[in-house]
Amino acid sequence: MRAQSEDAARRPEEATPSSLGFRMPAEWEPHERCIMGWPTRQRIPVPWSDQHMLALATHTLLAHAIAKFESVLVIAAPGEGAAARSYLGGDVEVVELPIDDYWLRDSGPLFITHPDGRRAVADFKFNSWGGKYEPYDDDAAIGERLAEYLGVQRFAAPMVLEGGAITVDGEGTLITTESNLLNPTRNPELTRDEMTRILEDYLGVRKVIWLPGGRGPEEDPDTDGHVDGVAAFVGPGRVLAHMVAEDHPDHERMLENKRILETTTDALGGPIATIPFEVDAGPLQFNDASFVSPYINFYFANGGAVVPTLGTADDEAVLDKLRDVLPGREVVGVPCPVIYYAGGGIHCATQQMPATPRREQSTA
Amino acid sequence: MRAQSEDAARRPEEATPSSLGFRMPAEWEPHERCIMGWPTRQRIPVPWSDQHMLALATHTLLAHAIAKFESVLVIAAPGEGAAARSYLGGDVEVVELPIDDYWLRDSGPLFITHPDGRRAVADFKFNSWGGKYEPYDDDAAIGERLAEYLGVQRFAAPMVLEGGAITVDGEGTLITTESNLLNPTRNPELTRDEMTRILEDYLGVRKVIWLPGGRGPEEDPDTDGHVDGVAAFVGPGRVLAHMVAEDHPDHERMLENKRILETTTDALGGPIATIPFEVDAGPLQFNDASFVSPYINFYFANGGAVVPTLGTADDEAVLDKLRDVLPGREVVGVPCPVIYYAGGGIHCATQQMPATPRREQSTA
Repeated sequence: MRAQSEDAARRPEEATPSSLGFRMPAEWEPHERCIMGWPTRQRIPVPWSDQHMLALATHTLLAHAIAKFESVLVIAAPGEGAAARSYLGGDVEVVELPIDDYWLRDSGPLFITHPDGRRAVADFKFNSWGGKYEPYDDDAAIGERLAEYLGVQRFAAPMVLEGGAITVDGEGTLITTESNLLNPTRNPELTRDEMTRILEDYLGVRKVIWLPGGRGPEEDPDTDGHVDGVAAFVGPGRVLAHMVAEDHPDHERMLENKRILETTTDALGGPIATIPFEVDAGPLQFNDASFVSPYINFYFANGGAVVPTLGTADDEAVLDKLRDVLPGREVVGVPCPVIYYAGGGIHCATQQMPATPRREQSTA
Repeated sequence: MRAQSEDAARRPEEATPSSLGFRMPAEWEPHERCIMGWPTRQRIPVPWSDQHMLALATHTLLAHAIAKFESVLVIAAPGEGAAARSYLGGDVEVVELPIDDYWLRDSGPLFITHPDGRRAVADFKFNSWGGKYEPYDDDAAIGERLAEYLGVQRFAAPMVLEGGAITVDGEGTLITTESNLLNPTRNPELTRDEMTRILEDYLGVRKVIWLPGGRGPEEDPDTDGHVDGVAAFVGPGRVLAHMVAEDHPDHERMLENKRILETTTDALGGPIATIPFEVDAGPLQFNDASFVSPYINFYFANGGAVVPTLGTADDEAVLDKLRDVLPGREVVGVPCPVIYYAGGGIHCATQQMPATPRREQSTA
């Protein structure tokens, strides 16, 4: 073992996380904390100024909801920490680090763990969803800064990837979408097979499942169809799959996603049960935007799930559906119209840092 | 005792709460719960529609902050209860009762207690701050409906009074303002002495202190200068007194308020210590409104104080000042620009229901 470690240390550029034994845990595995960004006044492209206070209040509700399950660390742009603390109160940790925007799921690093107890980050390149919003220098650098702040090793992955573009089962399986990763604005120099290989190398997965796509541009104009808008691993061999009515423009694509999931196997060779998730809620009108069903973009917290809702009488029935899907978890809603308006949901706005793997604790 | 009770029962119209032994406790005495209203879509007169979601999110933050100290009951207009529950979550009780607006401090009944353990309400007339906003039928009736819902006796007081127009020490002293209660839109048929007598009869106080006025119409266009915008009993013989800089239009009036407090005595004959509260924070611009210092309009909760803040870096220093004034209490802030924008603060938006007086508990 020692010889192997020294060998890896001599050639760090060749030692991928996977070869070293790291893997990305499933989101439902224990977290040390949740990391969020604080909405900055520089947020683009929506007319943010007139909804900035609503964004601050909503992110506070969100941070408080998550803080009932696990610690929350909020990253505020330099100079905005004190105001963030005024909103968030004493139960949430705030740190100032340069950020352009606050979608830590996409800009932030992905945490990986090692059986020996180490945690590290797989830090993929971030190019602002294919260069959609400028500037993004600080968001592209947040992985490195956060790794330094948290004192964890960083592996720089040679590929653009937003965290919302993947969902993993923690047992070697990853699901992504062609609409996002094969979009020429992401990694035009890489083939699909090369990207598959990099995902395997940096996230410790052994099987990558490619779905055709996520939501269409009407509902998701920013991400080119992140998987976290349409599908989520909710357990080993179990995927919650967004479904829409027949007259919806995404109908055929959602059916195709489901068909692929149902006819493939996971990394362990087992079947994948798809749980259709069609929501009869909304739309809710908000300024010039129309809300459909943000619910699938939820966040697993320790012992719970924090779900973006519309803040209407429709919510409770949907939360009850999710309670059936997530037995044993406390499922709570946070009305998030402004987050959706800004381009995402609760999953997009959060990033889990896994707890220290158990083996270290048993050998410590 | 029995004969006296029967006598009172025979002539209920003559039995005032004071004659029966009721009194209004100070806000810092133990509460059973806090009662709040849920912002309805019918709110007037501000251009509320474009800030309605911010109002909902902010009232949720407020209810959650108070719920850390005591139970919270939120009154939602009929049909809006499910949406309110979606925001508020499971830790806050929601009941649907007809309301026009949500300022329960002013529209709601004032709770009074009896040494034998009974609680009742002194239900003053409400005319929407002198008829400023129509309709107000349901707000005028909320005292009766709430008494019925809570199962407590109701005494209908023959006088218009908003709860924000008074502050009491629980030991027989009440402070109000001439600018509000002597305004001809409130009780033109009553003299100052007659009003004093009614306050004594229905709230169990023995001394009414009249201050000249509250904030001027620039900062407080709705209440005609409620005392809860400029002064608050913070303990027996201790009044926190809002002060402003020399160039402020309210400067002379605030000095006069302070002078009166310092040269009078409370109901027990003791001096009243005034604690000057001049805040160097804000203004914060919000739409067409300019925030000055909402802080004094805070709410005493069990073991704490919940303070309206600006949501800026200025807040923490002001909260520290209040911590000095309220030793032993946990002082927390809730950023409330939209509540201020709508015309009030946290005190205006809340109403305490006192805990059952101790004597009943000892004889139960």
